[in-house]
Amino acid sequence: MKFSQTFIPTLREVPADAVIASHRLMFRSGMIRKLANGLFAYLPLGLRSFRKLEQIIREEMNAIGSLEIKPPVVVPAELWQESGRWDAYGDALLRVKNRLGADFVVSPTAEEAFTSLVRDELSSYRQLPLSLYQINTKYRDEIRPRYGVMRGREFVMKDAYSFHTGDASLDEHYQAMGRAYRRIFNRCGLSVISVQADSGAMGGSGSEEFMVESEIGDNTLIFCKNCDYAANVEKAGCKPDFSPRMDALARSAAAGTPPLSKIDTPEVRTIEELCAFLKTGAETFIKTLIYRAVNVELDLSAAPGCSGLKKERPAPGAPEVYPEVFFAAAIRGDLDVNETKLAAVLKASEVNLAADSDVERLTGAPVGFAGPVGLSRIPVLIDHSVTAMNDAFTGALEKDRHYQHAAYGRDFGAWLIADIRTVRAGDRCPLCGGELYEKKGNELGHIFKLGLKYSKPMKLSYLDEKGESHTPLMGCYGIGVDRVLASIIEEHHDDNGIIWPMTTAPYQVVVIPIKYEGAVKDAADTLCAELEKEGVEVLLDDRNERPGVKFNDADLMGIPLRAVIGEKNLSGGSPRVEIKARAAKENRLVELARAALDLAGQVRQELEILNGASS
Amino acid sequence: MKFSQTFIPTLREVPADAVIASHRLMFRSGMIRKLANGLFAYLPLGLRSFRKLEQIIREEMNAIGSLEIKPPVVVPAELWQESGRWDAYGDALLRVKNRLGADFVVSPTAEEAFTSLVRDELSSYRQLPLSLYQINTKYRDEIRPRYGVMRGREFVMKDAYSFHTGDASLDEHYQAMGRAYRRIFNRCGLSVISVQADSGAMGGSGSEEFMVESEIGDNTLIFCKNCDYAANVEKAGCKPDFSPRMDALARSAAAGTPPLSKIDTPEVRTIEELCAFLKTGAETFIKTLIYRAVNVELDLSAAPGCSGLKKERPAPGAPEVYPEVFFAAAIRGDLDVNETKLAAVLKASEVNLAADSDVERLTGAPVGFAGPVGLSRIPVLIDHSVTAMNDAFTGALEKDRHYQHAAYGRDFGAWLIADIRTVRAGDRCPLCGGELYEKKGNELGHIFKLGLKYSKPMKLSYLDEKGESHTPLMGCYGIGVDRVLASIIEEHHDDNGIIWPMTTAPYQVVVIPIKYEGAVKDAADTLCAELEKEGVEVLLDDRNERPGVKFNDADLMGIPLRAVIGEKNLSGGSPRVEIKARAAKENRLVELARAALDLAGQVRQELEILNGASS
Repeated sequence: MKFSQTFIPTLREVPADAVIASHRLMFRSGMIRKLANGLFAYLPLGLRSFRKLEQIIREEMNAIGSLEIKPPVVVPAELWQESGRWDAYGDALLRVKNRLGADFVVSPTAEEAFTSLVRDELSSYRQLPLSLYQINTKYRDEIRPRYGVMRGREFVMKDAYSFHTGDASLDEHYQAMGRAYRRIFNRCGLSVISVQADSGAMGGSGSEEFMVESEIGDNTLIFCKNCDYAANVEKAGCKPDFSPRMDALARSAAAGTPPLSKIDTPEVRTIEELCAFLKTGAETFIKTLIYRAVNVELDLSAAPGCSGLKKERPAPGAPEVYPEVFFAAAIRGDLDVNETKLAAVLKASEVNLAADSDVERLTGAPVGFAGPVGLSRIPVLIDHSVTAMNDAFTGALEKDRHYQHAAYGRDFGAWLIADIRTVRAGDRCPLCGGELYEKKGNELGHIFKLGLKYSKPMKLSYLDEKGESHTPLMGCYGIGVDRVLASIIEEHHDDNGIIWPMTTAPYQVVVIPIKYEGAVKDAADTLCAELEKEGVEVLLDDRNERPGVKFNDADLMGIPLRAVIGEKNLSGGSPRVEIKARAAKENRLVELARAALDLAGQVRQELEILNGASS
Repeated sequence: MKFSQTFIPTLREVPADAVIASHRLMFRSGMIRKLANGLFAYLPLGLRSFRKLEQIIREEMNAIGSLEIKPPVVVPAELWQESGRWDAYGDALLRVKNRLGADFVVSPTAEEAFTSLVRDELSSYRQLPLSLYQINTKYRDEIRPRYGVMRGREFVMKDAYSFHTGDASLDEHYQAMGRAYRRIFNRCGLSVISVQADSGAMGGSGSEEFMVESEIGDNTLIFCKNCDYAANVEKAGCKPDFSPRMDALARSAAAGTPPLSKIDTPEVRTIEELCAFLKTGAETFIKTLIYRAVNVELDLSAAPGCSGLKKERPAPGAPEVYPEVFFAAAIRGDLDVNETKLAAVLKASEVNLAADSDVERLTGAPVGFAGPVGLSRIPVLIDHSVTAMNDAFTGALEKDRHYQHAAYGRDFGAWLIADIRTVRAGDRCPLCGGELYEKKGNELGHIFKLGLKYSKPMKLSYLDEKGESHTPLMGCYGIGVDRVLASIIEEHHDDNGIIWPMTTAPYQVVVIPIKYEGAVKDAADTLCAELEKEGVEVLLDDRNERPGVKFNDADLMGIPLRAVIGEKNLSGGSPRVEIKARAAKENRLVELARAALDLAGQVRQELEILNGASS
C-alpha cells in the first residue's frame, strides 16, 4: 500500500484530553479519531491492527471449540427483564424505546441473548457442552469515558458463553478458556497478571481476571510478596491481625480495662473530629456504619431484629431473598469497610450506606453516634479487627455522647464476625501471612463460572439420559478488544511512538525511499513487489516529504521493520538498503537483492516467536 | 469441521411468518434464528456465508481504492442536527437518550459521521479524492419488519462515502463504484437489474439502484419492451399521451366543446362515485388534489397566491427554501399523482396531501370538489395528461357541484405543466416511446452523487492550489449485506434447500459417511484431511443419523459438493466415493485416492468462474 493512497493523518500535537500513551499515540499516528466523548472511529491504520487482534482472538476461540455467532446488538428489554438485569444493571445500560414504545437495550454484554438463543434449541444432554461466542459492538453508558479507547462508551468485546451438564464439564471449558486467554495475550506480546477475582480466603476458583498493570488502572490489585496470591482489592482477603485465639485473648485482656463509661463529645461526629477532640489515633475507635442491603440470600431467621422479615422470590426460578435488610457493620477506626466483600458475606445483590433518617430510626441517634454497645434493633456484623479491641472509643447511640473503655466480649458481642475490611498494602496475605502490596491494573479479560445465575431464571433446560429435565450450568468469558489493543501500545512504545509486536502491527514493513523518483523509486517499487510476493504487508512511503518527516512518522506508527532506500547506497557495485527494526538503535546495510528475503525472514521469525509462545 | 462439533440446528418445520424462500431456508438450515421481531442472530453456518460475502465486498472496495474505517454505531444527535436529518429522517431513526440526557442516534446510515470525520482532517485539495467505507451494524426502526433478514431492523450495511474537488473526479469514482458493485453481484452469482433512479426524462445519471427481481419486492420497477430503459416507479417518467403540439390541438379541439356549465352532484365526492353518478369513465374527469409541500426550493416569486411567501435558510450553508407551500395538482382521473416526482418537480423535501381544513380554506369547498377552473389562491400544477383534455368533468369549488365541458386552454390554464403521473404498465417509454412494463424488485445496492447535500451544511472545506476555500462534492454508496445474502438464496434454491454458489457457500464440500465407523470412518477422515490440505472447506457429517437425514440436511444447507462414503463402494479392488454437485441429478463414482483432487479441482473451477466473471 502506498502512503499517498491511504488515509493516515499523523499529527505532532497531542490532544489535551490524551493523558496516557496509548491514547496519545493512537491519535497522533492516525489510528483513531474521536467522534464524540467516548465514541471513537478507527481509521485505516488503526483498523488493520484491530482486525488482526480480532483474528487472533477468533483463532484461539475456534481452537478450543467455541463457535462464532452474530446476535443483534440491539436486543429486546424483555430478555433483560427475565434475567432481572433490566432493573439491576443500573445507569450504564443504554435503554432505547422504539417507535412503537417497546423497550430495547444496546447490549453491554449478552448473557440474555445467548441464553435465549440456546433455550430455543436445547433439548438433549447430547447437545452439551456448547460454547458460543461473538466479536461484536457493545455499549456502556460510562458517565466519565476517558483514556481513549481504553474506557470508551462504544467498544468491541469478544464474549463467549458456555453451557454444561455438570461442574466437571464447566470446569474443563473454563480451564481451556483460561489457557486460550493466556495464548491470546502471549501472541499480543502482553504481560498479563492473572487475578483470582474471588477472595482467596473463600477458596473460590470460579472467576479469574486478566489484568495489565497500569497507572491509570480502574482496579487496585493486591499481591503477596511471599507467595503468588493476587486478587482484586474488591475481593481481596487478608489474615486477621491476630490469631484465631484472639477472641479469648481479647476477653482476658479486657479484664484490666476500666468499666465502660460515657463521655460528652459535643458536635463531634467523624473519626477525624473524634481523634482531634480526644487527642488519640483512629485505631482506638470502633467505627460503626449502618448499611441497607438489597436481596439478601443469607438466612436471617435467628438474627436480631429480623424475626419480622420474610423471604421472597423476585422471579420464578431465582433464589428466595429478603428484599431489604439493615445491618450495622463495625470495624477498627483506621480501616475501611469493603462493600463488595460485605455484600458477598451477606449474599446480597447490593449494599449501600443507609439514609440518615434510617440511621436515626435504627440507632436512636443522629448520624455519627452509632456503636455496637446496646445496638439491638438490627444485626451487628463485626470485622475481625474489632474482636481484638478491648479498650476502645465508640458511639453511645445518643447525640453528642460516646463510650470509652468499650471491650469486645465484655461490653458487646456480634451477630456475625467476618472479614469485611478493604485490604491495603502492608496487610497480611490470607494464604501465607506474607506482606501484601498494591498495584493499579486494567482488566482486559474475565472468565467466570456463572452456574445457574442466568439459566435458572431464564428457564433453560435439557433432558438427561433418563429423560429427566435439568438446568445447565453456564460460564461466561469476555475480552475487551479495544482495551487490549490500547494495552499493547501501553506496553510497547517509546518517546517516538508505538513499537508494534509483529502480530498486531498494521504493516510489517515500511519502505522509505529518500526521494520517490528515478532509480530510488524503481528500487522501492521492486522491493515492495518482492515483499508482497513473500506475503509481507508493506507500506511504501511515497510522499513528497523530507526524510525526517518520513522517519518520524514510521517511528510514530510503530511499524516493526523499516527499509530505507537512498541514492547513495544504490550507486556503486552492489546496491544496498538500510534495514532497521523499530526497536533497534542501529541500521544494517543489506544488499538490495537480498533485502526482501531478509525482511520476510525477520517478519516470519517474530511471528513464530509470538505465536509459538502460545502453544 | 465435524457436524457434531458445530451448532447447526436444522429443522423440518417452517416458521409461520416465513413466507419467502430465503427466510424459510435460512431458518430451516440453521443459518439464523430470530431473537425478536426484525432482530436476527446468525448462527455458525449462516455467519460463515455472511463473512464470505463481507469479504467479497471488502475486496472489491479495496480494489477501487476505497479505505475501510470503523466509526461508532451510536453517534451524537448533534451531527444529525447539523445535516438537518434529525428532523427530516422520521420515525425509522432510532433515537436514544443517554444517562446525562444527551441525544444519540443508532446509525441507519452514516453520511454525518463520515462527513464529520473528514471535516476535521481535510485541509488541502491534495488529500482529495478520498473514499472511505465501513461494513458495520445499522438500525432502521422498521414499523413492519418481515421476510427475515431481507427487511430486518438491525442489519449490516457496507456504506462508502467519497469526497471530490470536482464533477469529473466524483463521476470517475461513481463509475468505478458501479463497476465494483457489478463485480460483487457477479461474484455472488446474482442477476441484478441496474436502474437509473433519476427519471430518464430528466437525463440524470447521479443515482443508480441495483435491484433483484422479487415477488415480495418493495419497489416497482418500470422497463421498456423496446429499449433498455429501466427505472424505479418512484422516479419513472413516461412520454405524454400526445405530442408536444397537444396544447394547440386541445385548444382547437375545444372549439367544438359546449360551453362550461355547472351540474349538481349531491353527496358525490370520489371519482368512483362520480363515474357511477354520471355513468362515464374516470378518464373524462380532471382529478385535482391539494398538496402541502415542505422546504420548497423552486422559485415561486411569480406563482399565484405566493407573493407573500418568503424563503428561509433552514441551516447555515443549506439552500434557501419556502418552509411550507400549498399547491393544487391536476391529473386525468384514471391516473395517479406520483408524490416523489411531484416533490422532485417542486424541489421540495416532502409533499403530502393537505389536511381537510386546508383544502376547505384554499378551495372554498369541502374535500371532493376541487378543480382547476377558477382556482386562484394557490399555484396549479398540471400533468401533461390534462393538457389534452378538452371536454372534461371537474370540481366546481362548491359543495355538491361539478363542472362539465371543461377544456384546458379555454376554461383554465396552468402555472406549471409537468410529468407528475405514476407510470404503469402500458405507458410509453420516455426515451423511445416503446411500451413499458412492470416488475417487483428489491434494492440491494444504491450509488448516489450527493453533491453538496452534506458537505455544505456541515461546512466541509478544502483549499485549492491558489489557497481558495471550496466545498467538496460527495458521493455515497451502499450495499445491504444481509439482503444480498438472502437474495443469493432466493435466486439459488430448489424444493430441497439452498444451492450455494461456491463463493458464498458456508462449506464447499460435505463428506457423508453412511455410518461413521470402521473403514468408512477411516476413509472419511482421510478424505477430509486431504481436502483441508488442498485448502477446501469441508463439513464432515459424523452424526449417528440415517443416511437419508444426512442427505436431506446436506441439500437443505446447500453445500455445493457432496462426497458419500459407504462400505459397498469401499470394498473390492479400488475403493470409490460417490460425488455429486448439489445442483446435479446424478452421482459420479470417483476413486477414493483421487477424490480430494477431483473435488478441490471443482471447487477451484467454480470459484474461478464466479470470481473471474468479475474482471
